[in-house]
Amino acid sequence: MIAETPKPPYYAVIFTSLRTDGDNGYGDMAKEMEELAKEQPGYLGVQSARDGLGITVSYWESPEAIKNWKSNEHHRFAQRKGREKWYEKYKVRICKVERDYGF
Amino acid sequence: MIAETPKPPYYAVIFTSLRTDGDNGYGDMAKEMEELAKEQPGYLGVQSARDGLGITVSYWESPEAIKNWKSNEHHRFAQRKGREKWYEKYKVRICKVERDYGF
Repeated sequence: MIAETPKPPYYAVIFTSLRTDGDNGYGDMAKEMEELAKEQPGYLGVQSARDGLGITVSYWESPEAIKNWKSNEHHRFAQRKGREKWYEKYKVRICKVERDYGF
Repeated sequence: MIAETPKPPYYAVIFTSLRTDGDNGYGDMAKEMEELAKEQPGYLGVQSARDGLGITVSYWESPEAIKNWKSNEHHRFAQRKGREKWYEKYKVRICKVERDYGF
């Protein structure tokens, strides 16, 4: 369940969000976007948790892979619906992972 | 509830974990460490979510601030207890936040 990623450097997108009330089709779209992300070039993994605040971190080989996914047509549609219906507020942070270690 | 951070670049520590069963003093220590982190030089913010998988992201001004917090004596004690009792598994990723945007 903890994403397996290669030796750094690689890239991470930290997506932090507060949802609006109700599902309104969000769950289905979230699942669809997770499946679609996995098919993108340069995709390395994703992990999510929500208890009030939601944090999703996706991992990518390069900034180009992130840009490519951001501009994917289906993903752009989902982003627009997100702003219109599903999210009260969100923040996206694009990061370079410089080091990692685990236990 | 979404951490307010300054204009990039700044740094993020993504801590992903799977907990062992039971609390065993974890909740109190987590609260204590969050308070202590806030007092450290270069601390910018933190956000956490857990539903099975836990994701905590803390934000820092510099890699030095992260190193300083990692080697804090009370934090090192908590890290050791974490490996002994509270965590089944964890992964730490040190990142440079290059861009961010929100809604």
